[in-house]
Amino acid sequence: MKIQSKQPDTGTTIFTVMSKLAGDYGALNLSQGFPSFNCSEKLTDLVAFYLKKGMNQYAPMAGIQPLREIISQKTFELYGVNYHPDSEITIVSGATEALYAAVTTIVHEGDEVILLEPCYDSYTPAITLNGGIPVYITLSPENAYKIDWELVKSKISEKTRLIMLNTPHNPTGTVMSREDLNQLAEIVKDTDIFIIGDEVYEHIIFDEHEHWSLLRNPVLKERSFICNSFGKTFHVTGWKVGYCLAPKQLTEEFRKVHQWLTFSTVTPIQYALADFLKDPDNYLSIPKFYQDKRDKFLDCIKGSRFSYTPAQGSFFQCLNYQNITNENDFNLAVRLTKEIGVASIPVSVFYHQKNDFKILRFCFAKDDETLEKAGEQLLKL
Amino acid sequence: MKIQSKQPDTGTTIFTVMSKLAGDYGALNLSQGFPSFNCSEKLTDLVAFYLKKGMNQYAPMAGIQPLREIISQKTFELYGVNYHPDSEITIVSGATEALYAAVTTIVHEGDEVILLEPCYDSYTPAITLNGGIPVYITLSPENAYKIDWELVKSKISEKTRLIMLNTPHNPTGTVMSREDLNQLAEIVKDTDIFIIGDEVYEHIIFDEHEHWSLLRNPVLKERSFICNSFGKTFHVTGWKVGYCLAPKQLTEEFRKVHQWLTFSTVTPIQYALADFLKDPDNYLSIPKFYQDKRDKFLDCIKGSRFSYTPAQGSFFQCLNYQNITNENDFNLAVRLTKEIGVASIPVSVFYHQKNDFKILRFCFAKDDETLEKAGEQLLKL
Repeated sequence: MKIQSKQPDTGTTIFTVMSKLAGDYGALNLSQGFPSFNCSEKLTDLVAFYLKKGMNQYAPMAGIQPLREIISQKTFELYGVNYHPDSEITIVSGATEALYAAVTTIVHEGDEVILLEPCYDSYTPAITLNGGIPVYITLSPENAYKIDWELVKSKISEKTRLIMLNTPHNPTGTVMSREDLNQLAEIVKDTDIFIIGDEVYEHIIFDEHEHWSLLRNPVLKERSFICNSFGKTFHVTGWKVGYCLAPKQLTEEFRKVHQWLTFSTVTPIQYALADFLKDPDNYLSIPKFYQDKRDKFLDCIKGSRFSYTPAQGSFFQCLNYQNITNENDFNLAVRLTKEIGVASIPVSVFYHQKNDFKILRFCFAKDDETLEKAGEQLLKL
Repeated sequence: MKIQSKQPDTGTTIFTVMSKLAGDYGALNLSQGFPSFNCSEKLTDLVAFYLKKGMNQYAPMAGIQPLREIISQKTFELYGVNYHPDSEITIVSGATEALYAAVTTIVHEGDEVILLEPCYDSYTPAITLNGGIPVYITLSPENAYKIDWELVKSKISEKTRLIMLNTPHNPTGTVMSREDLNQLAEIVKDTDIFIIGDEVYEHIIFDEHEHWSLLRNPVLKERSFICNSFGKTFHVTGWKVGYCLAPKQLTEEFRKVHQWLTFSTVTPIQYALADFLKDPDNYLSIPKFYQDKRDKFLDCIKGSRFSYTPAQGSFFQCLNYQNITNENDFNLAVRLTKEIGVASIPVSVFYHQKNDFKILRFCFAKDDETLEKAGEQLLKL
């Protein structure tokens, strides 16, 4: 049987390609974004406790009450804004599901969605599978990936229904500022444009920067689906438990989609996370933890011929190699994996069209030994 | 912000309504389909083991290799058919995701999909959210829910792209026969119609019946997405780990959708299930376990004024109350919850149009004491 593909151009993701290559060549894998260390033993003990206790049947569709309550409390304490646990918070199977469900909720056939590139690879297919039309704005390393809000404004048409944003940003490591939020609010107020905020690196933010969640601006909050996850914060990317914050009317429609996509999310882990979140130290300690990792990595490549701006957030550091070679980034990523045993991600894959930016992304969510060995190898270039 | 709803007619699901009512009135909850008992301790021990071992990062998008391999082996041993673990088996976040992803893979704007009612409540929205048009065939209790294949054939048009089937069947407890498969194969051979088989009750089948999985007929296998789950088989409906079997070309397209929906599924549970499946007793013991439950329930209501055909599969028993009252099923389900403390599901909700069949669905995946108490109450009617 032959299938009429909806995604004829979709191949194997770069993450799968590079991780396989890393495996084949025994390379240090700084490509895919996951920690090389385990989560807190307290957290796995809690999951084991709830497994034994028998919390193994369907969770409520919107997620268990204690988890929604503690998320509500945490969000209020951090940002001073209210989301009601009953009607404005939904637990889902990872931020990827949150993004897909939010896009499905909003996008009707022919709607335009503004995307800022580089961006996570699920954004475009989520839009096109729902009949939407992606409208791209290119952020360039030459401009430090700064968002040109005038350009964003110029791309808005009568068909624009949604803008998708990500802060702290994968792959660039940049963060949005309060001023970015103000400018965006100025553009969308008095329109019926919705916003999706992908904020999974909320707690992975460095130096003087703070997390300007979209929900901190009232004009943005009332139209935003804030997609978040515990995977990055607690070193459990494989648990696939995330959540979506959105005002009541938006959440109502979001839940109608979520219930058909996955219905509910792994119960014993929800209970464990609800308990673990009761101690704010468990997430307030994360910025320093990852800033030390970033600094460790930057220290290890000190004296190399790469140029860079230190990541402001996320667990990725982009390195510019224009002083080293003229190769394109995909070829270089493959060559570094094979020849010096360090796997990375070529940043061009995060754009919808080919470009010749000379940037590789390295994940520093790795144990110190891995970072040291990778640094040694990168210094050879 | 007001949203232009894609699902204006979707309200709270009946499962949420009845479970809440059961809670409010302290009723025995035989409505929602999940066990009142815990899974095997061996299984929770395995999950705890892999949590501690640190298997907490992203699983491969298609699922971990050992789980795909043991599913391949199990499927071959049970049915004598081959699905290659690398290219024809995908682990997903529950059968609900498998169904949504398979529908998204196949259905283009304007395609028709044939559904047999009563059916699980996610089928229709999965179709319409993808721009498809559901075409309903009504199965009636008066005809013991038998499928009229001539009627199915008559509903096929040039726009028919997909047929969705479920065996063992929720809510009716019926199963498809080898002859059903033959008749369906006769209809779809030489067409480009695909099939989705929802087979989550594979191991919950009784008496002389056997599971006629669609994959046992070669004409059906080559065009089918077989959606399955471990939730029902191992008493872990809250873990949300399922899988989809489909020929290579179908799986390629299915995975392209799955990777944007959830990307991957909870890693430590995948490892635990892979180990647990190595002992076939863990699933071969399930038919007797649930047949005993069904028999217990039927024994408890012996002498009542309900009429019924014993369930052939699934963990649901439908009871016909036409000898008791003329009320509609929704009203009766509410009244029984409030007045005699037994919650059930009115079967009319599984149809897209109102009907006046006098049937309630009871879940017998409950401990014996609950079944006994429910029986005592039902005898009072």
